[in-house]
Amino acid sequence: MGRLTGGDPSLLRRINSAVVLRALRGTDRPPTLTFTDLVAATGLSRPTVEGVVDGLLETGLVTEAADEPGDTRRGRPARRFRFRAEAGHLLGVEIGAHRIATVLSDLTGHFVGTATRTVEETASADERLEQVRGTVSDVLRHGEVTRASLRAVGVGSPGTVQADGVVRLSTALPGWTGLPLADRLRRSFRCPVLVENDANAAVLGEHWKGAAVGSGDVVFVLAGLSPGAGSLIGGRLHRGFGGAAGEIGALHLLGREARPEHLLSTTGEPLHPLDEAAVARVFALASGGDEQAAEAVRRFGGRLLHDVAALVLALDPELVVIGGWAAGLDGVLEPLRTELARYCLHPPRVALSVLGDAAIPTGALRLALDHVEEQLFAVESAG
Amino acid sequence: MGRLTGGDPSLLRRINSAVVLRALRGTDRPPTLTFTDLVAATGLSRPTVEGVVDGLLETGLVTEAADEPGDTRRGRPARRFRFRAEAGHLLGVEIGAHRIATVLSDLTGHFVGTATRTVEETASADERLEQVRGTVSDVLRHGEVTRASLRAVGVGSPGTVQADGVVRLSTALPGWTGLPLADRLRRSFRCPVLVENDANAAVLGEHWKGAAVGSGDVVFVLAGLSPGAGSLIGGRLHRGFGGAAGEIGALHLLGREARPEHLLSTTGEPLHPLDEAAVARVFALASGGDEQAAEAVRRFGGRLLHDVAALVLALDPELVVIGGWAAGLDGVLEPLRTELARYCLHPPRVALSVLGDAAIPTGALRLALDHVEEQLFAVESAG
Repeated sequence: MGRLTGGDPSLLRRINSAVVLRALRGTDRPPTLTFTDLVAATGLSRPTVEGVVDGLLETGLVTEAADEPGDTRRGRPARRFRFRAEAGHLLGVEIGAHRIATVLSDLTGHFVGTATRTVEETASADERLEQVRGTVSDVLRHGEVTRASLRAVGVGSPGTVQADGVVRLSTALPGWTGLPLADRLRRSFRCPVLVENDANAAVLGEHWKGAAVGSGDVVFVLAGLSPGAGSLIGGRLHRGFGGAAGEIGALHLLGREARPEHLLSTTGEPLHPLDEAAVARVFALASGGDEQAAEAVRRFGGRLLHDVAALVLALDPELVVIGGWAAGLDGVLEPLRTELARYCLHPPRVALSVLGDAAIPTGALRLALDHVEEQLFAVESAG
Repeated sequence: MGRLTGGDPSLLRRINSAVVLRALRGTDRPPTLTFTDLVAATGLSRPTVEGVVDGLLETGLVTEAADEPGDTRRGRPARRFRFRAEAGHLLGVEIGAHRIATVLSDLTGHFVGTATRTVEETASADERLEQVRGTVSDVLRHGEVTRASLRAVGVGSPGTVQADGVVRLSTALPGWTGLPLADRLRRSFRCPVLVENDANAAVLGEHWKGAAVGSGDVVFVLAGLSPGAGSLIGGRLHRGFGGAAGEIGALHLLGREARPEHLLSTTGEPLHPLDEAAVARVFALASGGDEQAAEAVRRFGGRLLHDVAALVLALDPELVVIGGWAAGLDGVLEPLRTELARYCLHPPRVALSVLGDAAIPTGALRLALDHVEEQLFAVESAG
């Protein structure tokens, strides 16, 4: 708690309000509490609690609960209050190469809807943003939530993203590099829009509801043709000095023979077109006994192992979570586990993503939720 | 500052004492201050300051300064006090494969002496520790400092080191793996002994007095036959979950052709013996025009580039500092700079170590100084 000397009464009111609201939100489902409960939970005086609750009733964040039937016998029942999780909503959005995925939640982070649309890999930035607007409309309509109810929107997208929401560099999406993505999206929303690299969003998602619950030192590998990673260190996102931490995919540029179109070739010629379907075909051929395909799959696995080993040796995490579409291919995880255990001084646990396709939008939602919780509940930030 | 409610008078005294001592230490050289100066500097009452100073005079951490000649004309001059930087000493020790190096400082971190001894790479742990004791005796004797004056000892040594000062794994030093190094050294000292990985110590040294002053996001690469690294993230040491962060040297194990004895061979046979002198000969041959040696140097540079690139892509630092003996070889730094700029999304600055051989003992000293400053001056830790 900050220093309360100096006596700024409006600051004190905001802190007290955050303390009461935090008690009313609870840790899982919001409880229903009386003034007496709130005095006990917060350590504030009863008049202070009454004043704060009056203010919170006005904002709509708190509501008076209906009398419980059993209470009526003992004269006038104590007034009871609860946090209105439905007083606002949050949106998590993945803007990917092939799809737009959204998750909608209430103010406690409980999902109230999802929506997904596909998009062409070659779509322009404008076309892709049009699909984002469409997917957002879908999820709001299905969830019966108004746009005005949105308190914050989190976005996960490929590329390195600056603190101001401008995409510094994205090789995956046409027209994305240099795009002021947060600004462009703010035109569609009246609330804050927070933009994050997709792998960074994914590690937040897995830490919140997936494979990394309870682990604060995590590397999430978004395994595809060119792997990227998002890392938590001590429970906090490690973005790097320039927002490019974990962009390990560039490592293969140092050895030209390791480009994916060569790695996965079964003919000696570069694999073309180079997309998920083509890669899946190579993996299918390999499990059908094709020797050249099996060799290509071994090369692809070696490249992934090498990139993951580089991340593990540099960061020494507790846990590596493998996500992205390549994580779904047979025979990717086991060799990775075995080889990391052989070559790392301190081999981490290796797990598959639990959230799968939902990792990025879930993490983007967590970003939005963090932002709102900071505003509503954080006593530290009230200063 | 912590919450002062609850009224623990001894806690309050310790906090006030730390506040007064911090004012007396100053930021560079300790100033000489009157009671009036101290009241102004600390915001404490005059009686409180007087009581605290009396206590500090007793501990020997503060002394009363002699009257300044100019003051005598105006009756009794005000009493003046200064921090006794010489009231205690700190030691930084590098325990390396080839040498033991120590730095001795006063309580403000100003060096008062150094001493170095060579040691055989093949020396046993007991022989190496004997050389450590000898080097410590040398530096204390030359600095005319008693062993009892030491307040803390910091140590930097190859290998991953656990929080309890046990060496988890060191491939560089015989008998080092599993050694309870901090415990063994504590037998020689009556003060705390803090043990850290050598590259981790080096990054602290360069951040304090070398190439990384003012940079909080730094990777220090201890470039030798097998590079290791120490990293600061946001100004704090990143040790990793198991203390093995930055041990990037293991990466080459994934590609067997990249072992240094092959990399640096000029004959097709593994280079033997493989030591600094042999490597320096290969570099000298190369600059003399020998084609095979030049090719070997290119391979060695490529390996270093690859390891540094892996660290940079994983961590995205502001600055890379290249230290260790290989940093002194001609033609190591420039290709590294050029190639990192080509392949990294956000290329960091690349600088040579400023401290050179002194980086590890200086950083080890900084560890010891941090420990003592935490005890003497940190208001937060007084709780």
